[in-house]
Amino acid sequence: MSQKPLILVTNDDGITAPGIQALVEAVSTLGEVVVVAPDSPQSGMGHAITINKPLRLVETKNFGSIKSYACSGTPVDCVKLATNKILNRKPDLCVSGINHGSNSSINIIYSGTMSAAVEASLENIPSVGFSLSDFAIEADFSAAKHYAHFIAKQVLEHGIPNSSLLNVNIPKLPLELIKGIKICRQAEAKWVEEYLERKDPAGRNYYWLTGKFVNYDKGEDNDEWALANNYVSVVPVQHDLTMHKAIPFIAKHWKLND
Amino acid sequence: MSQKPLILVTNDDGITAPGIQALVEAVSTLGEVVVVAPDSPQSGMGHAITINKPLRLVETKNFGSIKSYACSGTPVDCVKLATNKILNRKPDLCVSGINHGSNSSINIIYSGTMSAAVEASLENIPSVGFSLSDFAIEADFSAAKHYAHFIAKQVLEHGIPNSSLLNVNIPKLPLELIKGIKICRQAEAKWVEEYLERKDPAGRNYYWLTGKFVNYDKGEDNDEWALANNYVSVVPVQHDLTMHKAIPFIAKHWKLND
Repeated sequence: MSQKPLILVTNDDGITAPGIQALVEAVSTLGEVVVVAPDSPQSGMGHAITINKPLRLVETKNFGSIKSYACSGTPVDCVKLATNKILNRKPDLCVSGINHGSNSSINIIYSGTMSAAVEASLENIPSVGFSLSDFAIEADFSAAKHYAHFIAKQVLEHGIPNSSLLNVNIPKLPLELIKGIKICRQAEAKWVEEYLERKDPAGRNYYWLTGKFVNYDKGEDNDEWALANNYVSVVPVQHDLTMHKAIPFIAKHWKLND
Repeated sequence: MSQKPLILVTNDDGITAPGIQALVEAVSTLGEVVVVAPDSPQSGMGHAITINKPLRLVETKNFGSIKSYACSGTPVDCVKLATNKILNRKPDLCVSGINHGSNSSINIIYSGTMSAAVEASLENIPSVGFSLSDFAIEADFSAAKHYAHFIAKQVLEHGIPNSSLLNVNIPKLPLELIKGIKICRQAEAKWVEEYLERKDPAGRNYYWLTGKFVNYDKGEDNDEWALANNYVSVVPVQHDLTMHKAIPFIAKHWKLND
């Protein structure tokens, strides 16, 4: 008889966040679950890794009988330590989230949630990052849980092609108002940043990042369109960052002597 | 008469690193240079941004008469603060580096040097990350400087197509042994990680990241091949992480009711 699938769960909001509790509940009937997540919030850490200081791992009881570990590092560190030091076999699935706040479009690039999933897929582990379009700590994760369960089951059954991973975003809606799933591309959008500029008691300036998200993409085949139209967005994501079509342009315009 | 091009210089090894000094020297004859770089080493920070604490900016005298600022944040923070708070016009070019150590292949994903260049290109600023395949603090940057100057000049003259940016890696060789430039794709390679596991004086475990780089790619059109064959590698890099070809596969295999 074959083993139950091994499912690694991580996130970037930290091991005590409601979103990871919801994700563990969503996938716990699908296999043997092990949680390795940051011991503190790590939002916006992107694909950061810890190289100049040592890492700590502490076993926790946050998920009842499910094995779980709090890690002092980033989400990517959690995946690296899990696969190298904690798990005795390669996971069949890695799920990250459920993030408090959307990681659609260009947000993927800043997201610790998504970077954890990217790191797992670099190890050829099918992986999915889940995010709910609601930053509130008291967000309702019930619809997100439903889709996390469905999508994790699909991935365990059908795999994901060519070492890609999935970026899944769930709109802030009750389950009955969500129209379904759209498999789509990443929208072309960006953050227009501003910094609050203030003076500390010693009179020195300091700056707080703020800004607003602007979607320039008019297509109806992208994740922003899907979310705005009450669909769950599923974007397959790759590791190859090469803009292949730019290669001949550059080779033609630069005067290279070879 | 038109203004001199404005060139933003940053890095991830910190404002005092020899590599950024070499890069400033390489581009200083091409336009008006402003340096905004981290006040401490930020290697491995990927696309991390600082969202839960304020940032500091301090004007420095590290580059003689060239305006320069040390920032308490990550390389991406440096670019955001430069474009929002320091520069009074959009730069014509952003150059990042010269990194002490290669950022070829999958290293791009962990690299603060490259993430700074990515962030600038998100602002539609033509941008280039430069890295030398030599981690030593006393590395010889003379060949890297030569190519940084040449490539920055090409980008100012010809642009980079479609909001892409360039990942440039220079082999650890004297200038006369470098055969030229190859415009190429990112190699398929990965890090095989290990963690040193040790006990602290209180008997608790801690872990140090280590590992080795493994290149699985047999092609001769990628950056690892170029570097191994004494060429400077130039990879155009995009922001769209969508694996477009996976969309129909998933849509076909998942049983979606829409």
